[in-house]
Amino acid sequence: MADTRTETDSLGSIDIAAVRYWGPQTERARRLFRIGSEHFPPLLIRAVGLHKWACAEANERLGELPAELAGPIREAAQEIADGRRDADFPLPVWQTGSGTQTNMNANEVISNRANELLGSPLGSRKPVHPNDHVNRGQSSNDNFPTMMHIAAAEAVEGRLIPALGVLHAALWRRSEEWADIIKIGRTHLMDAVPVTLGQEFGGWARQVELGIERLRGVMPRLLSVPQGGTAVGTGLNRHADFDTVFCQILAERAGLAFTPNPNKFEGMGAHDAFVELQGVMNTIAVSLNKIANDIRLLGSGPRSGFAELVVPAAGLSSSIMPGKTNPTQSEAMTMVAAQVMGNTTTVTVAGAQGHLELNVFKPVIIFAVLQSATLLADVAESFAEHMVLKLEPNRERIAENLAKSLMLVTALNPRIGYDKAVAIGKKALAENLTLRDAAEKLGFVTPEDFDRWVRPEDMVAPGATLDG
Amino acid sequence: MADTRTETDSLGSIDIAAVRYWGPQTERARRLFRIGSEHFPPLLIRAVGLHKWACAEANERLGELPAELAGPIREAAQEIADGRRDADFPLPVWQTGSGTQTNMNANEVISNRANELLGSPLGSRKPVHPNDHVNRGQSSNDNFPTMMHIAAAEAVEGRLIPALGVLHAALWRRSEEWADIIKIGRTHLMDAVPVTLGQEFGGWARQVELGIERLRGVMPRLLSVPQGGTAVGTGLNRHADFDTVFCQILAERAGLAFTPNPNKFEGMGAHDAFVELQGVMNTIAVSLNKIANDIRLLGSGPRSGFAELVVPAAGLSSSIMPGKTNPTQSEAMTMVAAQVMGNTTTVTVAGAQGHLELNVFKPVIIFAVLQSATLLADVAESFAEHMVLKLEPNRERIAENLAKSLMLVTALNPRIGYDKAVAIGKKALAENLTLRDAAEKLGFVTPEDFDRWVRPEDMVAPGATLDG
Amino acid sequence: MADTRTETDSLGSIDIAAVRYWGPQTERARRLFRIGSEHFPPLLIRAVGLHKWACAEANERLGELPAELAGPIREAAQEIADGRRDADFPLPVWQTGSGTQTNMNANEVISNRANELLGSPLGSRKPVHPNDHVNRGQSSNDNFPTMMHIAAAEAVEGRLIPALGVLHAALWRRSEEWADIIKIGRTHLMDAVPVTLGQEFGGWARQVELGIERLRGVMPRLLSVPQGGTAVGTGLNRHADFDTVFCQILAERAGLAFTPNPNKFEGMGAHDAFVELQGVMNTIAVSLNKIANDIRLLGSGPRSGFAELVVPAAGLSSSIMPGKTNPTQSEAMTMVAAQVMGNTTTVTVAGAQGHLELNVFKPVIIFAVLQSATLLADVAESFAEHMVLKLEPNRERIAENLAKSLMLVTALNPRIGYDKAVAIGKKALAENLTLRDAAEKLGFVTPEDFDRWVRPEDMVAPGATLDG
Amino acid sequence: MADTRTETDSLGSIDIAAVRYWGPQTERARRLFRIGSEHFPPLLIRAVGLHKWACAEANERLGELPAELAGPIREAAQEIADGRRDADFPLPVWQTGSGTQTNMNANEVISNRANELLGSPLGSRKPVHPNDHVNRGQSSNDNFPTMMHIAAAEAVEGRLIPALGVLHAALWRRSEEWADIIKIGRTHLMDAVPVTLGQEFGGWARQVELGIERLRGVMPRLLSVPQGGTAVGTGLNRHADFDTVFCQILAERAGLAFTPNPNKFEGMGAHDAFVELQGVMNTIAVSLNKIANDIRLLGSGPRSGFAELVVPAAGLSSSIMPGKTNPTQSEAMTMVAAQVMGNTTTVTVAGAQGHLELNVFKPVIIFAVLQSATLLADVAESFAEHMVLKLEPNRERIAENLAKSLMLVTALNPRIGYDKAVAIGKKALAENLTLRDAAEKLGFVTPEDFDRWVRPEDMVAPGATLDG
Repeated sequence: MADTRTETDSLGSIDIAAVRYWGPQTERARRLFRIGSEHFPPLLIRAVGLHKWACAEANERLGELPAELAGPIREAAQEIADGRRDADFPLPVWQTGSGTQTNMNANEVISNRANELLGSPLGSRKPVHPNDHVNRGQSSNDNFPTMMHIAAAEAVEGRLIPALGVLHAALWRRSEEWADIIKIGRTHLMDAVPVTLGQEFGGWARQVELGIERLRGVMPRLLSVPQGGTAVGTGLNRHADFDTVFCQILAERAGLAFTPNPNKFEGMGAHDAFVELQGVMNTIAVSLNKIANDIRLLGSGPRSGFAELVVPAAGLSSSIMPGKTNPTQSEAMTMVAAQVMGNTTTVTVAGAQGHLELNVFKPVIIFAVLQSATLLADVAESFAEHMVLKLEPNRERIAENLAKSLMLVTALNPRIGYDKAVAIGKKALAENLTLRDAAEKLGFVTPEDFDRWVRPEDMVAPGATLDG
Repeated sequence: MADTRTETDSLGSIDIAAVRYWGPQTERARRLFRIGSEHFPPLLIRAVGLHKWACAEANERLGELPAELAGPIREAAQEIADGRRDADFPLPVWQTGSGTQTNMNANEVISNRANELLGSPLGSRKPVHPNDHVNRGQSSNDNFPTMMHIAAAEAVEGRLIPALGVLHAALWRRSEEWADIIKIGRTHLMDAVPVTLGQEFGGWARQVELGIERLRGVMPRLLSVPQGGTAVGTGLNRHADFDTVFCQILAERAGLAFTPNPNKFEGMGAHDAFVELQGVMNTIAVSLNKIANDIRLLGSGPRSGFAELVVPAAGLSSSIMPGKTNPTQSEAMTMVAAQVMGNTTTVTVAGAQGHLELNVFKPVIIFAVLQSATLLADVAESFAEHMVLKLEPNRERIAENLAKSLMLVTALNPRIGYDKAVAIGKKALAENLTLRDAAEKLGFVTPEDFDRWVRPEDMVAPGATLDG
Repeated sequence: MADTRTETDSLGSIDIAAVRYWGPQTERARRLFRIGSEHFPPLLIRAVGLHKWACAEANERLGELPAELAGPIREAAQEIADGRRDADFPLPVWQTGSGTQTNMNANEVISNRANELLGSPLGSRKPVHPNDHVNRGQSSNDNFPTMMHIAAAEAVEGRLIPALGVLHAALWRRSEEWADIIKIGRTHLMDAVPVTLGQEFGGWARQVELGIERLRGVMPRLLSVPQGGTAVGTGLNRHADFDTVFCQILAERAGLAFTPNPNKFEGMGAHDAFVELQGVMNTIAVSLNKIANDIRLLGSGPRSGFAELVVPAAGLSSSIMPGKTNPTQSEAMTMVAAQVMGNTTTVTVAGAQGHLELNVFKPVIIFAVLQSATLLADVAESFAEHMVLKLEPNRERIAENLAKSLMLVTALNPRIGYDKAVAIGKKALAENLTLRDAAEKLGFVTPEDFDRWVRPEDMVAPGATLDG
Repeated sequence: MADTRTETDSLGSIDIAAVRYWGPQTERARRLFRIGSEHFPPLLIRAVGLHKWACAEANERLGELPAELAGPIREAAQEIADGRRDADFPLPVWQTGSGTQTNMNANEVISNRANELLGSPLGSRKPVHPNDHVNRGQSSNDNFPTMMHIAAAEAVEGRLIPALGVLHAALWRRSEEWADIIKIGRTHLMDAVPVTLGQEFGGWARQVELGIERLRGVMPRLLSVPQGGTAVGTGLNRHADFDTVFCQILAERAGLAFTPNPNKFEGMGAHDAFVELQGVMNTIAVSLNKIANDIRLLGSGPRSGFAELVVPAAGLSSSIMPGKTNPTQSEAMTMVAAQVMGNTTTVTVAGAQGHLELNVFKPVIIFAVLQSATLLADVAESFAEHMVLKLEPNRERIAENLAKSLMLVTALNPRIGYDKAVAIGKKALAENLTLRDAAEKLGFVTPEDFDRWVRPEDMVAPGATLDG
């Protein structure tokens, strides 16, 4: 039965499923690494295709590859970039730490597919040879990290920044809509002086905005790729201009300003750019955790919590408590944050252990980075749509909470001094009086002055309590 | 066209793909949580099936569920346990933090399937109702953590401990086979006094053995499940004996000694047992990282490294450097270790943020725990088979390294004192002499005494250098 | 001026402050490692003294050291154990990764002090020699890890377990005192069915109790010390019985059952026992974080929060908001938890990078472990005294919250089914009715049945809602 | 006896050591927080002084404080900034999470000292009142985070960037000095194609240079301080221009361009700027870990390791192995890296848990951040001085390793194709031939061509192997 073919390379022969484009290196790796179920995401496979396309084009332009081979190689690479060869990338994340097997997987798929396009059977290794042509002037050691940079840069620019933009816009819209709702502030989770609901959303919006700014700050190092370092960073066996031409082509195809890393050793032996990026995504996870948690707190209740926001029900409920509404989007978001924080430890540990000319934790680094970017992007959009834009303020409760707050006494500090203000607050709490009554009974403030001096609407901005 | 059906529950109506068994809660959740591509692994879905089977059986035994409903419920649950309904569990990890949607998913699939078995159409919600019958005496809040305990306990007992046993056996076999190979030891990566190759493998074997011991130490708390706590830990709406009977049934079906957690509040509001388990798996990851790294160091070369072990080629090579052999299994193993270390941070962050009666990071906790257990198990077996049992010692190099070591001088300490031994070593290094010649020239040790006192074979165990 | 003396060893001469007992190795290290301000805590210096005392005693018993030297060595070691030589241990944590310099520091201080006791000047290196006598049959490589085990075992048994016992007792006492206070439970931070305040404290108490159980589970591996491995684990240059006799003596002096690690390679090349211990302390930190956070939530207010507990004022207040009371002990506790979680990453990273016969991250490992144990112990006691035992329940608010809860409807599930219960809850919420009225209006439950079936006091334990 | 005085504030009376300037809030806190031994470092206390100086000056300029009070307040604040009041800051890190007690400590010390300067006894609280005057227009909630920003910005600009500059210069100098030393490269720790020793140092230098670039990228957010937010971010009770004037004064005194955070809510409720900074320091720790580890690998030996670098002895040695030299500076550096990585987890956990208007993990965040900055700075300088500038290349060993490398065959790829190159390499290894002989025997390359094509000096840069 012909459902396998036998392929032979310099290291031996092996049977491969007839329908698959991969070759012997991939097939051997597939058998050697039966570890876990984690595979590279489509973003990385797309980067593989983009990368190999640009390599073939660069080699052709530089006279290193004849047009009759470069053309079919590009065509096969484009199929990979378009997601049409995903099934031909069977290897798990947990393979060789250089990503060599995934690079060889690409070389084999492209050479087989290109040869097929040229009328040569799969496994013939000619006219297009996986190493001599598809991998020309390259090594896994500079290819794979370059693919990592491409995938991460696209994930940040194409997914994460836009998704954070959506969340920012939603929070900002709320901030403006609810700028007039004066409510109790809370510090240490305890009742404090007033803020507006708009100010609270504005603070969260600013966190997200700064997250975008942080991501942009990382881009120069993310767009700097080590292509051209070949085996150890020296550039052995590649054309002197390969890195520059490759980056020009890549930048054009990807629409991102990729540039050659001036120090390939840095870009292959270390992956600090990904540790840095993960550190920024960790910061974003920290921001999102706070935002989701704050909204969960303000939405707690409906009766015995803070209950200042009404969380959307969304048609979900408890399996036992009828009609119960939960802040499920906050929970998804804080779980994503926990995952991203863990990924930060993973990338740190992986980034720290590079040895000499090659860091061999590349697959786990890019896996964690792309997972982080994707999850943050997805959850930011989900949270914006299903939570932020569906929230409603509970104006009645907000007003009630504000009215009974003892901390309004703070407005008296500049008038009567801190120590007398303490006395008023203590008396009001102990005797269950209003602050106004307590102030009068103590003889510190007349009711008229109290009404003039203690006005929540004057307390949500600087300056007002000092005048008049 | 009839490829959807409309289902209605107390919260509204919704269209569902006709071929799917899930119901409205699942369908709504599917649309609300479009986040990432991570799903619960088969181990958890199996636990869901086991769990629901045991619940139905317990309710029947306790008179809470009539036999005519309990039977079809069990049958449907068994199909889930057998992996035949995986496609009916479409929800991502990033959902409600209680796992409510996955519990409701199970309730809906089982009620639909049981009703189908009883001749009632999908979506009829009778005679078997997802909440009143399938979820009888239960809540997501005690169900889901119990499912987590089941899945984790099976992962540890059924996968991780056996796989570590395989690795331990392989290392131990090498330790015995190579007990006679005396080689240079290394501390601070610098040449030190001799050890045997068997001793090195024995140390690694012992690390793995202790890892198994550590896992066994966690089992009592892993087998203690909060089933019976229902909504908040009090056991509201369940039969007084439900938790005990459930555990008896579950223990019998699963072959693991599950017991009721005497304090359901602890088991639902917190998940310390998983933080503890993850801490032990983190310790195992640390062990495996060291072992993989040490073997990579000893196998470095083949000519300009330590080169005392020959790493198997396995038919893989560099894409640019012809015939290069790399320690790829060590790389897969250390990448897995990095992932598990990251998962430890994730589980820590998730475990620490439980609020009052419910920790709502359950899905990410069990996702990280099961991923850790599976990856460690897979990589332990892979490393044993493809690395440990394929290694060969390079006896020639080992002998050469041993012969030229300056640290053999240490054996002279008890004879001539540390300070004179230092002088011999310094002279040998400076003048490129043998230790024997340096000792003689300094007049500290005669050649005859040297040969009697400095014998590597006496240096790999206590006591010998002090006698004779 | 004679405020320095010059000491000479086999590696050269150096000036040392005349008043200090340390010698040239310590002095050189002091100058080479000007890094940070972190020093080993008294617990480790005490372990150094205990260790050296036991070594001298063991060597004397085994005939390896004459009584006239062993005696003064023990006397000097005892002074270290008693904290009288702390000023003679000047080295920072950030030194040689084997702790060699701290071991040499001890050798030098003891030899100088012993020689002084014997009438010989500091720096004479005789009759007691730092290496030949004080370090007899030992190496830094087995000494320092053994000191680490001693210090950690004492910290766990002497400080952490007792302190957790204090916290457990306080929480348990509250659990019993407040067993009768029925209150609203909360899941997802949302109002849920009732629990008792005692049950909440009972869950926290159980977490702490299990933390103690976890610590006890680690002790066997913590009490197993690698003493006797000397330089590389083989036991070169030590008496064959040294490890056994040393452990007997140590166990007796320390009152803890220390035993020889049967595989010294494991105990020197790896420090998995500390990674495991840190993992357990991380679990305890997770528990404490939850407890402190839950109490902070229940104490939020005083007017616009959950306000079910009254947090002690303790005489502290805001610098601007007069009379504000904050849950400061919860804040100290959660900050400690954050530190311990970070230390877990540190110990993981440090433990994972051991090379061959020696892990060279020993100082940072023991620093992090002892800091974790000490902080957890201190904060547990502080929290018990200044928070748990000073809390008061706000019975009025608790009753009010309970009365208005919509989730009491859950008790109707077994009577009328989940779907009808949902309808009641929704109607009550939408029309601002009591559940009782909504149930009647919908015709699902008569007021009499409602009063019989929906009783909070029946809802805090299993079984009751199913009867009568 | 008069060694205590009694001070009274609005919350009661308490005895305080007569010699101390602190007041009742500090004294109470000292008794309530007996946790650990960690205190804020001098960098933070200096920031406290700078901050309070600038506040007094700003208030005076704005007419909020009379000159006769502002002057003595500034004088007292300056004493703090100058390190002359360190003993008056007794509180541990583990206190109120807002740093309130440290802010009150400053208010009390300054008011007491200012009153003393004005001839009023300690404890009189007049004419300078700790809250009404020293804390005028401020809250702990904006003061303490501003102090954190000041201290961190000074640590980065004043210590860390200069110290990394020292390390960069040392590595770069080596890179230039050793640009001509051609040696074997290593990937996967296995022998690979040649690099120069200068290229290796150049890669490390570039990592450090990028670390500095990353730090500079964080500065804008580090220099943006929330001063002016007062209690909750609104600016209640402060002059409308206070934040701007404060920043002008501060920037001038500190020599760093501090600016008002335009969104005080972001800067008080969250501390993302510190999470971001810690993420960058984590990246630097990753870089340093790799550099220290690589140098340790190249220095391994002296006889049975890679042995291409000679590590300085520095007068330290093993306690048992006479004359042994160890890479102790690498060990200190990698231990510091482990600490900084752990601190990253700490800061992440602490940063993620802010609640509403106030993050209450401020003390642990700044403690971890300043510890990280200080340790990285110290170890960078130490490593530059005691390791990098003392290393020597072992030219003989380097030449020997290069000569015997099988991977030189890679240069033949562009000439004869990858598959034939594999055959040559395999034959050379199997039959222990030189590559040249193997190539000739296989008839693939003549000896003349071999000599022309395989030249290590042509292999350390791109292009050369493709020509001639």
